[in-house]
Amino acid sequence: MTTPEYSPGLEGVIATETSVSYLDVDIEQILVRGYDLIELAQNLCYTDVAYLVIYGELPTPSQAKAFCDRLVAEAEVPDELYQLFEMMPKSTVAMDALRTGLSFLAGYENPELLHDNSHEANLEKGIKLLAQTPTLVVNSYRALNDMPIVRPNPDLPYMENFLYMVRGERPDAESLDAFDRIHICYIEHEMPNSTFAARVIASTLSDMYGAMVGAVASLKGPLHGGANEAAIEFLMDINGEGGPTHAEDYTMGKLERRERIMGFGHRVYMRKYDPRARFLMDYIPKLAERIPQGQDLSSIYSTVENVMYREKGLYPNTDYPIGLLYYLLGIPIPLYTPIFLASRTAGNVAHVLEQHDDNRLFRPRVIYSGGRGLKPPASPISPM
Amino acid sequence: MTTPEYSPGLEGVIATETSVSYLDVDIEQILVRGYDLIELAQNLCYTDVAYLVIYGELPTPSQAKAFCDRLVAEAEVPDELYQLFEMMPKSTVAMDALRTGLSFLAGYENPELLHDNSHEANLEKGIKLLAQTPTLVVNSYRALNDMPIVRPNPDLPYMENFLYMVRGERPDAESLDAFDRIHICYIEHEMPNSTFAARVIASTLSDMYGAMVGAVASLKGPLHGGANEAAIEFLMDINGEGGPTHAEDYTMGKLERRERIMGFGHRVYMRKYDPRARFLMDYIPKLAERIPQGQDLSSIYSTVENVMYREKGLYPNTDYPIGLLYYLLGIPIPLYTPIFLASRTAGNVAHVLEQHDDNRLFRPRVIYSGGRGLKPPASPISPM
Repeated sequence: MTTPEYSPGLEGVIATETSVSYLDVDIEQILVRGYDLIELAQNLCYTDVAYLVIYGELPTPSQAKAFCDRLVAEAEVPDELYQLFEMMPKSTVAMDALRTGLSFLAGYENPELLHDNSHEANLEKGIKLLAQTPTLVVNSYRALNDMPIVRPNPDLPYMENFLYMVRGERPDAESLDAFDRIHICYIEHEMPNSTFAARVIASTLSDMYGAMVGAVASLKGPLHGGANEAAIEFLMDINGEGGPTHAEDYTMGKLERRERIMGFGHRVYMRKYDPRARFLMDYIPKLAERIPQGQDLSSIYSTVENVMYREKGLYPNTDYPIGLLYYLLGIPIPLYTPIFLASRTAGNVAHVLEQHDDNRLFRPRVIYSGGRGLKPPASPISPM
Repeated sequence: MTTPEYSPGLEGVIATETSVSYLDVDIEQILVRGYDLIELAQNLCYTDVAYLVIYGELPTPSQAKAFCDRLVAEAEVPDELYQLFEMMPKSTVAMDALRTGLSFLAGYENPELLHDNSHEANLEKGIKLLAQTPTLVVNSYRALNDMPIVRPNPDLPYMENFLYMVRGERPDAESLDAFDRIHICYIEHEMPNSTFAARVIASTLSDMYGAMVGAVASLKGPLHGGANEAAIEFLMDINGEGGPTHAEDYTMGKLERRERIMGFGHRVYMRKYDPRARFLMDYIPKLAERIPQGQDLSSIYSTVENVMYREKGLYPNTDYPIGLLYYLLGIPIPLYTPIFLASRTAGNVAHVLEQHDDNRLFRPRVIYSGGRGLKPPASPISPM
């Protein structure tokens, strides 16, 4: 008997058909609903692109206004969510608190709507989740860190309110602009593990909330959403151990010890440049002026990038600049992955919509490498 | 350009190599760690088989005793879990409550152990989750239905305690025997959607808890764990609408209206008999004597099975007899899927162990069916 071939991690295997997005690696382009993601990030704002991702086309001005109004109107969550976060052990990590919060929130949904997987019902739930996720992201972190809860401010637009809740005060225009564009860069990315997890779960005809909870569980992992935190921590380690002049030696030492440096390379992009990383890089110099260690971190950033290309032929992926940019924006590091999750919500909603609109249960097979023909004893071993 | 072929739902695609189990459909055998699952169910008890699934081999008597003692000792959960269940809106469904409870529980884990994916650390967490899941399954349901909490009884073995918590009183030997064997039949089944979801999530190096939470989200779906509930509801509908003599007409009517009848057929078994369904069928007659409508339901069960084979060539899968058996055992219907999840925990723990022991990130590709070359307007559409 020959063992069939397979591709570990489903590398290169096609899992589904989608009209949401595509990584066209040959031309270094991320296609989102027919547009170049970088052109969307250059020209539009996050709520425009979220509408595009979810509905499949850009909004008219009145559709955009109605959509934004709705995101603002639905941002508040039941009081019990804040109680839940207060009740959690302080050792709970932010992504786990968010996962629990989203899961708990399902209980407040009308049960009929919750289990209705029609396109219309899923849109309803998806937009509500997009509205509420920032509130959960910020306040789970705040409660766990004994910081006062900041409820969503209904006078602020969606993204301004998000950064307001993070900082506890209204953001300046430059910060908001950068925060919004990073959010666009993270919005959707074909079939990353978290989107795949959401679709796998949705394919049992489980509901939108369950799929989103699965996406949080996936994105928590250091090989996925955790990478932006690891990237800034690496830059800060270098800054703490001698600063820019030691960046080269420090990176070389890490490479010689065969330790992984997060934020470089990508299974799909391989040795091509992640277009989001190239686009976002330009935001670093200006924001670096705003905090004392900003220039040093920016200089370390460039050195590490050069060493990684010279030694390994690897370009940065988007987690590398975003780790630094979030830091320069004053965002607490444990919030990086939850904020990434919040930005990705629009994309995941679009994928669950698509999955339920034309569903096929995911149920692959395996290669069995275990034994055969063993016979159990005739009676139980355990004490009854 | 030609569109590449793909297999929707990854049907027939090999997702991974595993030594945990294999559906050897040609010989109608479920191989678990080298043994025939039905022989395990005939001869051993659930804790024996759980040990086998997790550790890869059957325990010695002293290993079995230590394992069982540990499952009993670790069954209790922090008080806050009971508070959490009391706090949930009463409209929360049991699987969502369980999903939230498991997610919340992660906050009580030592953070270093939580994020340690070594085999040893994963075993530690996996066995704890196996011990605690029945407590969460039963008491989330009890709290949502204003029934008194039943804490685990440390004087009772694992499975007896489980059924004791479900019923609120110690079970008779016949019930316990059937409950234990059903639990074995459900313990592990190669790469069903929930196990696949757990492995996909674990492959980002996310932790054991997150993978289990994803499995709950998946198993909730009506195409997966929800099938046993749908199966008994169908039998009860027939019983309510005329009883056994109307079973044939009722089933034919449903087939003529092209409505799906749950509990028949299986993507992998196709037109073969699910060996678990055949094994468990024999438990129906004796248990059917124990409740007033038992004989009628048993008679309807046989008629529907015959009609489904005659008309569609489909055999029952394991959800069909288990739906009826759980009912005959007096288990409330909303608990069927959560109890299924509890029995599957050992299998999912084994798969997460295997995934982390030799990890490869799941990250498939897609066929893109959307547009290209669209140009966004030069400035945002949404109100800023």
